[in-house]
Amino acid sequence: MAQSPFTPKKFAQLPPVAGVRLAACEAGIRYSGRKDLMLVLLDPGACAAGVFTQSKTASAAVEWCRGRVPSGSARALVVNSGNANAFTGMKGREAVEATAEAAARIADCAAEEVLIASTGVIGEALDPAKFCHKLQDLAEAASADAWSDGARAIMTTDTYPKLATRQTEIDGVAVVINGLAKGSGMIAPDMATMLAFLFTDAAISPDALQSLCARAVDPTFNAITIDGDTSTSDTVLLFASGAAGARGAPAISAPEDPRLEAFAGALVEVMRDLAHQIVKDGEGASKFVEVVVEGAENAAAARKIAFAIANSPLVKTAVAGEDPNWGRIVMAVGKAGEAADRDKLAIWLGDLAVARDGEADPAYREEAGARYMKNSELVIRVDVGVGNGRAVVWTCDLTHGYISINADYRS
Amino acid sequence: MAQSPFTPKKFAQLPPVAGVRLAACEAGIRYSGRKDLMLVLLDPGACAAGVFTQSKTASAAVEWCRGRVPSGSARALVVNSGNANAFTGMKGREAVEATAEAAARIADCAAEEVLIASTGVIGEALDPAKFCHKLQDLAEAASADAWSDGARAIMTTDTYPKLATRQTEIDGVAVVINGLAKGSGMIAPDMATMLAFLFTDAAISPDALQSLCARAVDPTFNAITIDGDTSTSDTVLLFASGAAGARGAPAISAPEDPRLEAFAGALVEVMRDLAHQIVKDGEGASKFVEVVVEGAENAAAARKIAFAIANSPLVKTAVAGEDPNWGRIVMAVGKAGEAADRDKLAIWLGDLAVARDGEADPAYREEAGARYMKNSELVIRVDVGVGNGRAVVWTCDLTHGYISINADYRS
Repeated sequence: MAQSPFTPKKFAQLPPVAGVRLAACEAGIRYSGRKDLMLVLLDPGACAAGVFTQSKTASAAVEWCRGRVPSGSARALVVNSGNANAFTGMKGREAVEATAEAAARIADCAAEEVLIASTGVIGEALDPAKFCHKLQDLAEAASADAWSDGARAIMTTDTYPKLATRQTEIDGVAVVINGLAKGSGMIAPDMATMLAFLFTDAAISPDALQSLCARAVDPTFNAITIDGDTSTSDTVLLFASGAAGARGAPAISAPEDPRLEAFAGALVEVMRDLAHQIVKDGEGASKFVEVVVEGAENAAAARKIAFAIANSPLVKTAVAGEDPNWGRIVMAVGKAGEAADRDKLAIWLGDLAVARDGEADPAYREEAGARYMKNSELVIRVDVGVGNGRAVVWTCDLTHGYISINADYRS
Repeated sequence: MAQSPFTPKKFAQLPPVAGVRLAACEAGIRYSGRKDLMLVLLDPGACAAGVFTQSKTASAAVEWCRGRVPSGSARALVVNSGNANAFTGMKGREAVEATAEAAARIADCAAEEVLIASTGVIGEALDPAKFCHKLQDLAEAASADAWSDGARAIMTTDTYPKLATRQTEIDGVAVVINGLAKGSGMIAPDMATMLAFLFTDAAISPDALQSLCARAVDPTFNAITIDGDTSTSDTVLLFASGAAGARGAPAISAPEDPRLEAFAGALVEVMRDLAHQIVKDGEGASKFVEVVVEGAENAAAARKIAFAIANSPLVKTAVAGEDPNWGRIVMAVGKAGEAADRDKLAIWLGDLAVARDGEADPAYREEAGARYMKNSELVIRVDVGVGNGRAVVWTCDLTHGYISINADYRS
């Protein structure tokens, strides 16, 4: 698989998060010669929040986590790549329980305090006996610095590990937020999905943490699309160790507490950073596209139009071909089904006015559009002329690389 | 552009439809060296019905036709390819009016009795002066036999003309239904869309014709997808000349009249035939796929799930790669958002049971699935285990050919 042209030259160096240790190893679940199992251990007092796939065929691990967050006590996280444990019936549920019990024995906690995520092939039984015996070694090796190992162990078709971090403060006390993620192209080739795990030393109650998590996911992980497909396993988990309390950070239990303002902003930044990394490593991606829709009836309508543009195969292939084909953008606005005033519609490529008042801008020249499309990062902006609703989503182009990854690998 | 592997070895030979004459010519609207303008003339007494794109940015021609059908009198149809006259503002409306007036003078009727369709590039002004002077010649050349010429004149990225015909009867009197269509891949490269024109000599009132048309479109043209994109110009028009009345066919004005039963069935057959031809000529298509969803909450839910499967890039690339990747079908069912019982879900590839009761069928062997996927026409069947809703839709695969047609042609 070709390395993404957006591969960072330098990966983010993540600092320790007090109360959190991790390790990763090769368990041989499907891949050989690379790490595929991560264990994260949290000191007593940690809690967790989470947001999951909307899929009606969610995986066994998603069902397990959904039943557990927001959780008053979270002591361990086990993630494997190579097998999604999805569509595996009763055996899938048993595999999750066995994994949770094995991790609980090692972390000296209850199985209910263990969270689990799996990513990889669908429909094949995941045998926990094959990797649970590795958990003891992982627990012994766990350190405050193994973030890069963890990010690599959760990769499937990703071409680079995704890491992000921010320092922020709560009531004047410094706290940190670290994040790991993997992409995308959904379950392809059988085994991509979106997973993101965030860790902070802030002391925040489970309910407040859940509220912060859900609000931060909306304009970040929920505003990206590679191919419009939805994995059975998409999972975002946010853990708070509370260890900053020892340095004077207040314990906060109301999501609207004004002392959380900076923290909430930093959380969105970490998630947006990871979300953009996922798009830039989308299968076959050669361009990163920000789609901005303004003038819609409301924010939800704007988002629906933005996703209609971002998911349109015709828009995405035009971007791949560096073709300033704004007729396809008009088409995508039209198919979204939300109110749009055709005769007030305006379109920009970056700062370049392409169309306005429902027809080509008289000053627009296709040469200028074609020049703009050569950029590797693009902004498509549309005003649909009916209200004040606004949304921003991010996507990548649709290239021969996507077809090669998803159609050719068995042929 | 590569010829579709599904190109018919022999095209349907369409018989005359009493009261209908047509001709096509080269008007040089965008293409050179091929016909791009069609005129159909209908004798006095003809009426028309129509179904149009749901796009919120519909073309000027669509707006014109939508305001006119069902129409008590339809005397001419003008169709051009090469320019969609979409997103062309006030100039677009003026172009439609000028075309209708020119055709009306030639057909000796009112402009309101002229229907119009345009397909091709979006956002460029269509100058009717460039082709209206050709209409007189077309009227003089119009014959009862020029169906093949007409089908070729409305093509854009189509690789073959699409024709179908059925003989049927109303109250014992023979009538005919002829149809022409063009595909698909939507507005790509700037200029695909779905147009279909049907002609019968039956004597049916405008309201009854509209009801028949709408009911026949639902399980045919509205049950196909190439890439999930929706053109600004999709148009289906059904004309009834009434000329069979002279041979004793009754004039029918109630859509539920039992004497229309055979006719209604034949109309669905013609539309389904054309719809399948469109899918088989989808951009880059190498496989034709029937998606059957059963056991859904109701028919609408079944259709939504079927389209989620048929539009999934991951399912479509798996088909292209001849990969029996049923995990992607599970994913697509899950993302449809309709009720599905994951633990009762069953999947078949043709007659081959692949999954049941929410996991791989114990008897299924991937070799058998891989062998089945080598067929050029495939059936994917899913039972989602919650009710009796059923739907059938048709699609094609997503190949390098699609990317080449839509991304590479300007690069």
